[in-house]
Amino acid sequence: MSLGERALFLDPKVRFIYNGAAQYGSYDHQNASSQNIISTAIKTTTQTLFEQNFIPWKFHPRHSDFEPAINASCTYIKSVRLEQSGIDSANVAKPLAGEVDESYSLSMKTNGQVTITAASSVGIAHGLTTFTQLFYKHSSGSAYTPYAPVSITDAPKFQHRGLNMDVSRVWYAPADITRMIDALAYNKFNRLHLHITDAQSWPLEIPALPMLAEKGSYREGLTYSPPAMAYIQDYGASRGVEVILEIDMPGHTSSIAYSYPELIAAFNEKDWSTYAAEPPSGTLKLNSSAVTEFLDTLFDDLLPRVLPYSSYFHTGGDEVNLNAYNLDETVRSNDTAILQPLMQAFVDRAHAKVRAAGLTPIAWEEMLLTWNLTLGSDVVIQTWQSDEAVAQTVGKGHKALVGNYNYWYLDCGHGQWLDFYPDVSQSFYPYYDYCAPLHNWRMMYAYNPLEGVPANLTHLVLGGEVHIWSEQTDPVNVDRQVWPRACAAAEVLWSGAKDDQGQNRSQITASPRLSEMRERLVAKGIGAEPIQMPFCTQNGTQCAL
Amino acid sequence: MSLGERALFLDPKVRFIYNGAAQYGSYDHQNASSQNIISTAIKTTTQTLFEQNFIPWKFHPRHSDFEPAINASCTYIKSVRLEQSGIDSANVAKPLAGEVDESYSLSMKTNGQVTITAASSVGIAHGLTTFTQLFYKHSSGSAYTPYAPVSITDAPKFQHRGLNMDVSRVWYAPADITRMIDALAYNKFNRLHLHITDAQSWPLEIPALPMLAEKGSYREGLTYSPPAMAYIQDYGASRGVEVILEIDMPGHTSSIAYSYPELIAAFNEKDWSTYAAEPPSGTLKLNSSAVTEFLDTLFDDLLPRVLPYSSYFHTGGDEVNLNAYNLDETVRSNDTAILQPLMQAFVDRAHAKVRAAGLTPIAWEEMLLTWNLTLGSDVVIQTWQSDEAVAQTVGKGHKALVGNYNYWYLDCGHGQWLDFYPDVSQSFYPYYDYCAPLHNWRMMYAYNPLEGVPANLTHLVLGGEVHIWSEQTDPVNVDRQVWPRACAAAEVLWSGAKDDQGQNRSQITASPRLSEMRERLVAKGIGAEPIQMPFCTQNGTQCAL
Repeated sequence: MSLGERALFLDPKVRFIYNGAAQYGSYDHQNASSQNIISTAIKTTTQTLFEQNFIPWKFHPRHSDFEPAINASCTYIKSVRLEQSGIDSANVAKPLAGEVDESYSLSMKTNGQVTITAASSVGIAHGLTTFTQLFYKHSSGSAYTPYAPVSITDAPKFQHRGLNMDVSRVWYAPADITRMIDALAYNKFNRLHLHITDAQSWPLEIPALPMLAEKGSYREGLTYSPPAMAYIQDYGASRGVEVILEIDMPGHTSSIAYSYPELIAAFNEKDWSTYAAEPPSGTLKLNSSAVTEFLDTLFDDLLPRVLPYSSYFHTGGDEVNLNAYNLDETVRSNDTAILQPLMQAFVDRAHAKVRAAGLTPIAWEEMLLTWNLTLGSDVVIQTWQSDEAVAQTVGKGHKALVGNYNYWYLDCGHGQWLDFYPDVSQSFYPYYDYCAPLHNWRMMYAYNPLEGVPANLTHLVLGGEVHIWSEQTDPVNVDRQVWPRACAAAEVLWSGAKDDQGQNRSQITASPRLSEMRERLVAKGIGAEPIQMPFCTQNGTQCAL
Repeated sequence: MSLGERALFLDPKVRFIYNGAAQYGSYDHQNASSQNIISTAIKTTTQTLFEQNFIPWKFHPRHSDFEPAINASCTYIKSVRLEQSGIDSANVAKPLAGEVDESYSLSMKTNGQVTITAASSVGIAHGLTTFTQLFYKHSSGSAYTPYAPVSITDAPKFQHRGLNMDVSRVWYAPADITRMIDALAYNKFNRLHLHITDAQSWPLEIPALPMLAEKGSYREGLTYSPPAMAYIQDYGASRGVEVILEIDMPGHTSSIAYSYPELIAAFNEKDWSTYAAEPPSGTLKLNSSAVTEFLDTLFDDLLPRVLPYSSYFHTGGDEVNLNAYNLDETVRSNDTAILQPLMQAFVDRAHAKVRAAGLTPIAWEEMLLTWNLTLGSDVVIQTWQSDEAVAQTVGKGHKALVGNYNYWYLDCGHGQWLDFYPDVSQSFYPYYDYCAPLHNWRMMYAYNPLEGVPANLTHLVLGGEVHIWSEQTDPVNVDRQVWPRACAAAEVLWSGAKDDQGQNRSQITASPRLSEMRERLVAKGIGAEPIQMPFCTQNGTQCAL
């Protein structure tokens, strides 16, 4: 990247001229997804530049005159050329990791000529996102950049850059989720993993199994209908954010018991901590033909509705509790020697259904590392417990997603959500949660997805996800829980944790950049937290040690 | 408190009938402040009940039919009698601790008769606040209580129940501050301490010293004008929340150097950590007639504008740095033997001005405990560093405010806001802030203001404050930083940390109450965080251990 110091203004009627495949002004050579991605990106760009921009007073010395003068000699950008050099593949909006070339280059000359070049429509969209982030709002109301000439060549280090959002423990309106997609796309994340069912509630409507959401949701109306899901998935696909659904199983399923109690073992045991990581306990029975039939019906209903928008389906598999199977009359054992072959068969069936539907399975690390299952080489393993889990996963030849909970769980540090009876309360003092303390952005920024991964296996690390669980998160605070800390992870996933010299990236340059990105998010209606007071951002490195 | 199980509905035209001093419908015997407090309380009550109410589905079993039926046999509350038994003192809206009787009683009969009785208008207002908290929104749109008959007799344990809000390091619009006052009043806090100037910015306009805010503010317009201050103070006074201003001195004053550089020593030293707790360094010179004149002008301008709304003025005094006086040419020493008499004279002068203006001084604990100053017996000492500081303060015969930063600082736990250069960064990993971790509500609720205080001195503990500093807080996240955790402190200050048996209060009963209060705050437009997912609040004690 190189930036200059000349100001350019943006013509309020700036035109975005897309070459389609080769011919200016034509979409002929691109498919519907491509057209949608480009037209959405142009619309978002215009909105960001003219309606969701901000005056950057926090980033200039106090009471300084930092704005370029508006006069007859100002240069205006009248058009932006979008030059796509390749033809998008049919699944440009729902790729497997690595299938879409997301790179782009951006050239902005002092005479106002702007060109964004990319191999794919998603690359063009990324280039437009970067373009908006060069501009500020002027007191006069117009938009300007102080950085011309600009030359940027950019490409992501990791192909899977995601957020895992728990929309089961708490229900989020589709508008909350699309607001999250807007913020993700703006930070060049390309995956939204929706953890959409769990023990506490089942908000996902399955028309073939209508009782599931009718009884398993928290309240009438707090569900995701097929049209609502399609809206969310399409919203993401149009913005380069592939929405991946997870039905966590066989654990984390006790909300099924509200409609199909015969399928769940150890449901809502009073002594829940014996049978689950958190209340309510419950697991799908492990050797039950009724469960098999149920899952067949579920998959047959759901997966065809996933396929138009995603190439993945996440079958979960975390935190399976052995003791629960003592209460499962199809098993009556907590002996892994007995359970392991049954789990292998359970997961084999699920993954076969996922593949038959044209999708690629994702599973939590426990299935591979704790249960030692034999999984297809296509299965992507989502690690979360340690850096070692990443190394072990790729060591077994599997593709891995990272997201060590000690670094990239965004919900941590708010304290226990369990209530303690007076007779035991003191022993839990000071009531920290299991993944405390809160992981600040500097810590998240220092996390290296490739830590401990042998150099010859790093290609198997597809990327990673940050995670927002909803035990203490809901629509009122989700923006603050996620942003701007997730921006730090986004940069690690885009650029890598290390700089060109192999050192951790410098906070000294990242911090003002993150503060500025936070202001941009706020301008876009995302309630991101501040990371420093204006004194720090107005005064260079005076808040540095 | 006793609650029944009969439902009562609220007539949309419910009347509030205030007896003034003795005669129904008359305000004659009350002063303007009293009339203002009562009329504001009635207006707020109506707004809360009919416009800012919530349907309590989160507090009933999933898909249960919890609402009372609306039919011909429903009983409606048509009027609420407000019976004030005493005449308010002239400073009912700006009392010293203990000057106003805040107790009230509330009676609601199954026939719909409601009476709130109190000695003062503030007590009536508290009773009305409690009244609103017995009601829920009905799906039909009306308001109902399921708890009749109700009998409540209530009074606060501590007289000073406050929040200290840092509106200097970040500027908050008056609307942000009045929103905070609304939330404080709703939780029966009765003090808002505005930490209104600090090293980083001076937003307070002083007409006699116009350069102070003109140069010391972050940006033109980010100031508090005298009318804006009067608006905020009056808004609080009308709601039983006395607004107390703090001009922190002699430390935390370097923003004065932008307009009066000759008054500040050690201003913005590059090696700031030698001279201050955080950048920028700087302190008022300690033996300077120019400083004396400046403060005389400042106090003469400001204090008469404080007097109509408050009986206190806070002169600060925390974190004074000795080394800064090595660079003060009026002193040239960091020897406390030399500095202490000068500090005594400095504080004596300030407190004399405060008293002369008709106000009572408040000072941070360091002036008494670190500097061993001799302070007037009227001076209220605000402790913050330890429980021992409280015991020492009352041991010296002084009135104390509590608010141990290990429990009641609401900003803690979000990580360092300082940036670290690459060569030292690793030594600060994992970048915790000085008061990490985040203090969760259970911990705040377990904090006992009287810890270590001898029984014969507890009367000197006037109460306490929770604190929200603004290094990483601003209008976007302040609601979430403060609420609902401050509610836990509000209950400790109102009811005491111990129950009738002298035990810590039970989380088992406090937790659902806090979750409900959170929903009430959200309904009022306060962005309070959730503390549990609906599964927990819908299911009794299934999230208890």
